[in-house]
Amino acid sequence: MFSLASLSLRLRAFGYRGDRRTMATVISGNKTSKLVRQRLTKEVEQMKTQFLGFRPSLVVLQVGDRDDSNLYISHKLKAAAEIGIDAKHVRLPNTATQDEVLRSIISVNENPSVHGLIVQLPLDSVNHIDNELITNAVAPEKDVDGLSCINAGKLSRGDLGDCFIPCTPNGCMELIRQTGVSVAGKHAVVIGRSKIVGAPMHDLLLWNHATVTTCHSKTPDLPVQVSRADILVVGAGRAEMVKGEWVKEGAVVIDCGINHVPDETKPSGKRVVGDVHYASANQRAGYITPVPGGVGPMTVAMLMENTVQSAQRFLLKNQPGR
Amino acid sequence: MFSLASLSLRLRAFGYRGDRRTMATVISGNKTSKLVRQRLTKEVEQMKTQFLGFRPSLVVLQVGDRDDSNLYISHKLKAAAEIGIDAKHVRLPNTATQDEVLRSIISVNENPSVHGLIVQLPLDSVNHIDNELITNAVAPEKDVDGLSCINAGKLSRGDLGDCFIPCTPNGCMELIRQTGVSVAGKHAVVIGRSKIVGAPMHDLLLWNHATVTTCHSKTPDLPVQVSRADILVVGAGRAEMVKGEWVKEGAVVIDCGINHVPDETKPSGKRVVGDVHYASANQRAGYITPVPGGVGPMTVAMLMENTVQSAQRFLLKNQPGR
Repeated sequence: MFSLASLSLRLRAFGYRGDRRTMATVISGNKTSKLVRQRLTKEVEQMKTQFLGFRPSLVVLQVGDRDDSNLYISHKLKAAAEIGIDAKHVRLPNTATQDEVLRSIISVNENPSVHGLIVQLPLDSVNHIDNELITNAVAPEKDVDGLSCINAGKLSRGDLGDCFIPCTPNGCMELIRQTGVSVAGKHAVVIGRSKIVGAPMHDLLLWNHATVTTCHSKTPDLPVQVSRADILVVGAGRAEMVKGEWVKEGAVVIDCGINHVPDETKPSGKRVVGDVHYASANQRAGYITPVPGGVGPMTVAMLMENTVQSAQRFLLKNQPGR
Repeated sequence: MFSLASLSLRLRAFGYRGDRRTMATVISGNKTSKLVRQRLTKEVEQMKTQFLGFRPSLVVLQVGDRDDSNLYISHKLKAAAEIGIDAKHVRLPNTATQDEVLRSIISVNENPSVHGLIVQLPLDSVNHIDNELITNAVAPEKDVDGLSCINAGKLSRGDLGDCFIPCTPNGCMELIRQTGVSVAGKHAVVIGRSKIVGAPMHDLLLWNHATVTTCHSKTPDLPVQVSRADILVVGAGRAEMVKGEWVKEGAVVIDCGINHVPDETKPSGKRVVGDVHYASANQRAGYITPVPGGVGPMTVAMLMENTVQSAQRFLLKNQPGR
């Protein structure tokens, strides 16, 4: 007869690690974003008490009337209201010219009672508008989306305390922190190099002292690169492209993908999946974010975080004797 | 008796690859920088002919009187003169205040006949001067050192056609191009993440479509990371830290290090070495830069390149009908 201890040892020798270790721990963006929003609510309450009714203020500038933009903006306004941030939705018609959009931005830049300004992208105008010009017209100290060149430059060169970090990668870092896994000294792999996800994610991991590899559409040996990642962040925009068997045993897997794939079993005929094949990655990763309910809910929470941070910086600058 | 062919095969089986392949091809920065300077001389000559005596103009602003700065500036002025760039050396005393330095910068920013402005670092002043503030006061369209946040942000997010690339990494790219090895799809490893070498080098390799890994002082397995590099760029600032046996067979090795080590056989009692152990790396690399005579001479050449490029952009903007 085998004792339980020796049975366990023999099973481990065959790769069996017990029920509790065969599936990754799920990192919930729903739970984590709720914790962030609760913390921010308290911070805003404190500001209000300490500075006689002071409230952080955010302007969301929209051009046109896209359905998806309307939905995203409603989420942002709702989150702001719950936290106690004074959020205003400024709407320009789809006939707005570039100059009109610029004038709106400048007017918010110059308004000292507003701490954050985001321009909802994509711009929905019948006129040609230069996205880069618009993004960079937002005053860097109010650019809570962190998308202007100046904020990108500071982040990419390691001046993290003096910039706004784009919301999605900032949310990913918060999720990684939730695992308790330290980033410093780890090998992190980022798939994707977009301005809003991959590129700033590289910077954040690097300046949190990971060794970072950036992969993209021109990377010929993606499975090999992925297999080296202690921390894997995927922002590729391709449904389930990262296979479970590529993932390093015990890795932290953060999936920024939101893809719609056909699914006849659903009333809508489709379902949402990430850039990682969850069912198989789940078998090898130590921690993994689900889609939906992973990175998605973090983005709005981090926008609120940036807005509150901007208001705090404003107070620090403008309170004499502080 | 062995035939020559069978002898050669037997020797290869023992790792002997014939004289021509046992040593890396040396990438000469002296030769390459000369080619760049010759090309620029022609371009400046053409501008002069086409635009009635027009010359690219560069201002080098120095605070104080450091010996090393004086030497570097003299190299820059000499290179400019040879190419036909009108370079001015503006000198402030070491008693200059931050405001005085800023006023000098603004005056050059506003002078339409100057196309490039660099502030020689480190600043040598008895007063406290904020380096970041000074670097970012240079107008982005004249920032031919490419060190301002705006230029760093554009480079880091892939807007390469619309920024100035810092001179040392730009020189490294030129040296890599000289090898004929294509960067796209290769695995590049950068050691170091400084603002003037490592961080922008990562960006340049990434946006030339390499898969890029950035290593630094917190990387625990540097030999393993280095062994994966098809292209290796080292800007670590530590004498001969990269050992030949770490280097992948046939890799392109670019050494940005300039370190002084004791050497009793030299009259000065020291010699200059790079961050790579040249004698051993030379045995494994396909291409390698020497130190001195590798990256060093490229830096001044690329500053001239940026100045000429700035003048060309100025002409494009200011010539009606072009």
